[in-house]
Amino acid sequence: MKKILTVLAAALLFAGAASAQEIANFSRGQQVVSPEVTAEGITFRLAADYATVVSLTGNWMTQGEGPVAMTKGQGGVWEVTIPLLEPEIYTYNFIVDGVAVNDPANFKVQRDGTRFLNMVFVPGARSSVYNEAKHRGNLTTLWYDSALLGINRRMVVYTPYGYDDPKNKKVKYPVLYLLHGGGGDEEAWSSMGRAAQILDNLIEQGKAVPMIVVMPNGNPNQQAAPTLGIETSNVNFRDPAYANAYVKSLVTEIVPFIEKQFRAIPKPASRAISGLSMGGGHTLTASQLYPSVFDYICPQSISSQDTPEIRAQLRALKNDGYKLYWFGVGKTDFLYEGALTLDKILTEEGLPHTFFVSEGGHEWKNWRLYLQTFAPLLFK
Amino acid sequence: MKKILTVLAAALLFAGAASAQEIANFSRGQQVVSPEVTAEGITFRLAADYATVVSLTGNWMTQGEGPVAMTKGQGGVWEVTIPLLEPEIYTYNFIVDGVAVNDPANFKVQRDGTRFLNMVFVPGARSSVYNEAKHRGNLTTLWYDSALLGINRRMVVYTPYGYDDPKNKKVKYPVLYLLHGGGGDEEAWSSMGRAAQILDNLIEQGKAVPMIVVMPNGNPNQQAAPTLGIETSNVNFRDPAYANAYVKSLVTEIVPFIEKQFRAIPKPASRAISGLSMGGGHTLTASQLYPSVFDYICPQSISSQDTPEIRAQLRALKNDGYKLYWFGVGKTDFLYEGALTLDKILTEEGLPHTFFVSEGGHEWKNWRLYLQTFAPLLFK
Repeated sequence: MKKILTVLAAALLFAGAASAQEIANFSRGQQVVSPEVTAEGITFRLAADYATVVSLTGNWMTQGEGPVAMTKGQGGVWEVTIPLLEPEIYTYNFIVDGVAVNDPANFKVQRDGTRFLNMVFVPGARSSVYNEAKHRGNLTTLWYDSALLGINRRMVVYTPYGYDDPKNKKVKYPVLYLLHGGGGDEEAWSSMGRAAQILDNLIEQGKAVPMIVVMPNGNPNQQAAPTLGIETSNVNFRDPAYANAYVKSLVTEIVPFIEKQFRAIPKPASRAISGLSMGGGHTLTASQLYPSVFDYICPQSISSQDTPEIRAQLRALKNDGYKLYWFGVGKTDFLYEGALTLDKILTEEGLPHTFFVSEGGHEWKNWRLYLQTFAPLLFK
Repeated sequence: MKKILTVLAAALLFAGAASAQEIANFSRGQQVVSPEVTAEGITFRLAADYATVVSLTGNWMTQGEGPVAMTKGQGGVWEVTIPLLEPEIYTYNFIVDGVAVNDPANFKVQRDGTRFLNMVFVPGARSSVYNEAKHRGNLTTLWYDSALLGINRRMVVYTPYGYDDPKNKKVKYPVLYLLHGGGGDEEAWSSMGRAAQILDNLIEQGKAVPMIVVMPNGNPNQQAAPTLGIETSNVNFRDPAYANAYVKSLVTEIVPFIEKQFRAIPKPASRAISGLSMGGGHTLTASQLYPSVFDYICPQSISSQDTPEIRAQLRALKNDGYKLYWFGVGKTDFLYEGALTLDKILTEEGLPHTFFVSEGGHEWKNWRLYLQTFAPLLFK
């Protein structure tokens, strides 16, 4: 027995990734391949011998399309093949007898708010920048004290490849502030948004300049992503006294904090701001209330109202000057009409801008597309 | 219609965490509370009206105990209450008609290798340091080029609260190298191990000195955690020519890299090494092959052989000198016997050491306990 234990111990201690950390892990079983992406389509499989009804649901399905039934085959493995999707990252899960289930054969998982979803990656030109590049930057989670919001708050910061190289010790970098939407948090852009991979690839290919990317938490009542389980602020941020409190914190607290902590160029021409949905609203508000801070303004999936106050703010922004005003929206985004309004008032007030209209709607595949589209335009 | 869209848009854009980023997210449904921890016990619940058999499995269950049946109640919600567990973090999942399912009502999830498991937190003295402290350090994922292993490799580095404070600009810190086990990767200690929270709390309470913690990837063929989906090395690390390749990389590549990238004190008295299981093996090997590098040696859940070569290495370590030799093992750990061997040969060779024996086995609740037990002993 002693000998067997020693041999087992040695095998466990010095084996590679195939072994496991807790005894409970030793029996896994699950051997099906899922998902399987081929030129013909994508096959999803789930071993569920005792289940009665199994179906597949994915974020590529249009409203009303609903889950797709899977068929039970040999060995109790349920299966369905769908036509190949356009190159992108999609999320999905199974429904087993009415319960949402992650694919146990696929450990590529994204957190969207409080839900965990499996990813399926369809390769192609558009999605190639979502892969890991050869040269990668670093991601740091760090905390800042917000006097305005009264809490210690978390952000994720990307520094480009070479930032820590001693030979770049004197090099300073421009900064992109990249903001998430409602339901998101400081991890959304580096997880669902593939921001680090997109920047790594674009910088490696010489398409974008090396830059720092700051991804703060945009929910003023939160210290950090809900998964951290730390308490939120009791302040009522809907109280008009706290109007735009987060945007104020972003501009007057986060920007100076970043420019102190990192080798950032502290000039408008080296600051860009972008965000999706709620973060697009933050982008509009920040650029309109603080017209001299950011010279690159790139809201995504955004709607504007047409009011005299907003028009006056846009005129002030025009007078102050900027380098790029770029915004993107999908044709089926429920904010499309409001994006047309933004295009209209920017045009009427004489602010040069690029209005990028894509297929699709209010979804991450568009936000990843927008980031890879406007990032090469920054700081040039 | 336009007005409705505008109102909806405004609500979505400026709402807090309650709203969601993709249209698909708007219908969630799931409203059960699970898990619910009270003084009487822990109740787990799952809404699964169409399921036939639902059970609960958790890492507190002893071998042979198996999943616990749940009972279907009102509204199709299945439920089971177990007696309250000792304060710690436990992992669990449901089994719905034979398929492993995460708890959709609990977004606290740990990745263990390629599996995602829900966490349940039982509060108490022992687990209090797993909560977020008031003052938190930062976590950075960064990459180093290993000439020895021929690949670019990822690690996670913790810097303590205050590290980035300009007033500490000249302060240098000691470093703990903290190694994962088989099946783990560079994210294991900061995720399952709660290393950042444990250090944050111990440092905040004045029990541990501020230190940097370096958590490399210990699988020599891997660039990074499998979730990143990047290729592994084709080198056969079982080839004797590559014996101890990872430990060599750790000592001769990672240590110098860290001491260049961070404000680390580059002295043996300011270097500690610890690891669990396979990482405990790496700790033994590193301390025995490089006796003058680390003055604090803390293997966890570890087994040693008794050979003349190992005894000679231990004598060399003794002659070189060290500050602390601390190792921990659980009474039911399958490596317990091998840990007794280590205790015996350390004693016989005259190396002062602490042999910490806990309840339990080869499991994360012990490794979290060991870290919070030995961290206060480091660098003092």
